[in-house]
Amino acid sequence: MTTLMKGSCLQFKVTDQSALSRARCGEITTAHGRFETPVFMPVGTQGSVKALSPQDLEQAGVSILLANTYHLYLRPGHRLIEKLGGLHRFMSWEGAILTDSGGYQVYSLSKLRKISEEGVTFQSHVDGSTHFIGPREAMEIQRALGADVIMAFDECAPYPANEAYVRNSVRLTSQWAAVCRACPRGDHQALFGIVQGGMVPELREKSAREILALDFDGHALGGLSVGEDRATRRRVMQQTVPFLPSDKPRYLMGVGKPEDILDGVAAGIDLFDCVLPTRNARNGALFTKQGPLTIKNACYAEDDRPVDERCSCYTCTHFSRAYLRHLFMAKELLAYRLNTIHNLHYFMGFMAGIRKAIQEGRFGEFCKGFLGRSGE
Amino acid sequence: MTTLMKGSCLQFKVTDQSALSRARCGEITTAHGRFETPVFMPVGTQGSVKALSPQDLEQAGVSILLANTYHLYLRPGHRLIEKLGGLHRFMSWEGAILTDSGGYQVYSLSKLRKISEEGVTFQSHVDGSTHFIGPREAMEIQRALGADVIMAFDECAPYPANEAYVRNSVRLTSQWAAVCRACPRGDHQALFGIVQGGMVPELREKSAREILALDFDGHALGGLSVGEDRATRRRVMQQTVPFLPSDKPRYLMGVGKPEDILDGVAAGIDLFDCVLPTRNARNGALFTKQGPLTIKNACYAEDDRPVDERCSCYTCTHFSRAYLRHLFMAKELLAYRLNTIHNLHYFMGFMAGIRKAIQEGRFGEFCKGFLGRSGE
Repeated sequence: MTTLMKGSCLQFKVTDQSALSRARCGEITTAHGRFETPVFMPVGTQGSVKALSPQDLEQAGVSILLANTYHLYLRPGHRLIEKLGGLHRFMSWEGAILTDSGGYQVYSLSKLRKISEEGVTFQSHVDGSTHFIGPREAMEIQRALGADVIMAFDECAPYPANEAYVRNSVRLTSQWAAVCRACPRGDHQALFGIVQGGMVPELREKSAREILALDFDGHALGGLSVGEDRATRRRVMQQTVPFLPSDKPRYLMGVGKPEDILDGVAAGIDLFDCVLPTRNARNGALFTKQGPLTIKNACYAEDDRPVDERCSCYTCTHFSRAYLRHLFMAKELLAYRLNTIHNLHYFMGFMAGIRKAIQEGRFGEFCKGFLGRSGE
Repeated sequence: MTTLMKGSCLQFKVTDQSALSRARCGEITTAHGRFETPVFMPVGTQGSVKALSPQDLEQAGVSILLANTYHLYLRPGHRLIEKLGGLHRFMSWEGAILTDSGGYQVYSLSKLRKISEEGVTFQSHVDGSTHFIGPREAMEIQRALGADVIMAFDECAPYPANEAYVRNSVRLTSQWAAVCRACPRGDHQALFGIVQGGMVPELREKSAREILALDFDGHALGGLSVGEDRATRRRVMQQTVPFLPSDKPRYLMGVGKPEDILDGVAAGIDLFDCVLPTRNARNGALFTKQGPLTIKNACYAEDDRPVDERCSCYTCTHFSRAYLRHLFMAKELLAYRLNTIHNLHYFMGFMAGIRKAIQEGRFGEFCKGFLGRSGE
């Protein structure tokens, strides 16, 4: 465990501030390690970043990962994980962990969702059983899991949604945030509030002001990447971030396309998470500096080159595109691990490149160079 | 590449001979490394030991693995692998490789098998297409794959089979062995002949004498573990091995239950292969010194202990039974890798224990101790 200042669950300092945008570098210290921001968190939905071991994650340079409260509550259950010493010990991960509040999964995965003032009643996607999670339950589950950063329980509006729906979603999110803020949690656990408000500038501002008033350890933008286009997403980020204090970390939830990460960093975001690198890997879609590579394509059948000649990951230093294609076509389990190792390595390298560019005062050029190459 | 004596493709020497049985320790040197026998070869069917990387195999202490000619011929094709530098390079494996001849898979996996004097016409289990493999084809495929040890093409009799069928199977196997012996192969490739003969002592003897006359680099017992009981299998081994010269390695094909390995070692066998540790792992059946452990059982849901407290594998030193059960129940890909790492570690340790017992003149006690513990 890292030594934290007494009484502090998370330390954040801005180390570099871009002159031309809100882009910044920072350093976050948690009870499970210190890392630089902007940072990308791979998603370990059920207590495992799919196909990877903790050793693989370390080797890819991962310092913080995200785990899903909703999934772990349903299976194997937060009580069991608490009994076995918490999520870090359960999954043998010594780095930092952030758990989401379950709000988004309740919205996106469960059936027969029913929202009341107290919380959400929903059916499990695993076995159809009925459950209830409100702000108190979300906090109790996250306390039991023991992540370093935990999230307030929010109501995520769908897209598109009418203004009345979004207004109510902001109201519930603020109401629940206040309950979460008052709930007990572990001494080492930082609590982030979530700003909702859909694509409506006035409601984003209202939500931000209400969440800010509760004095959280950090702030998240929720309700993005729900179907809106990139320009809309960028506008909402640009309009909302200025309401958030600069001395606390800012987290853009569930957003992870490289171009969206660049937009987020430019808007002043510090933390990102997304299933994109890991899910795409399992579907054979690999990221390279030269653009996407679909490994099943016939053109790679006899291609002796690595996925990316300039990549230093285990996959690229040991295996050819031809072998990876063979594994993928034959549905060999090794395919999913090797592809995931590569994609995660790509994302970690991408974030390191962003940080270096900010530190060297050339983030704007970095974005132009990247978007030019990838044809965005 | 290991240095071999000029003109030699494989060196074998017996280093220890048990006084009370035919059990022996030896050392095999191939172009891709030297290893001690008795040795267990995990199965890398399609050019990958399922769920493991070459690094995982090295860490488990694997020195030689088996790959399937039949599977690699169908997908991705031996020409492609040859073009890309051979199987070692294709799968990034620096240790030794043995390829089987395809005879057994043609027998067990393909549909509409038709045997002639020249070979076997069969339908691919992948796409139903029609193919022909005879001794020349089997040798050409194995030459292209480039394994260190390659196998003559044989005809494996089913069980039970009438004597006329087995007699013909022995005749074809000898006829094809002579063709294989005369076929070109790589300078570094050792060629093993296969003894068939079902469960009929006279036919096993006849097959052994005919195969021996062809002066192979080593000898295999085929046609076992096809449904016969353990006592029958043991009898056939005990009766057949005495016909094989002691200065060449002996390989028992496809046999790998720990008790069968002990029977084989006692009969004088040096090499074993089996999908058992890897397949069982993927089904959640784990080997331990205290007996089998079915990881999905509810009794492990809150079990904080490792699979085997005395095991030093990555799985046992990092994860609890409870976590492994959770991964398995949630169908997480990591489950298959962690389980396979453990089972393979168990098998490699088991073989090391056998070798040590032979070296120390206590193989009989080792067998009694093992069979007593496992309740055999």
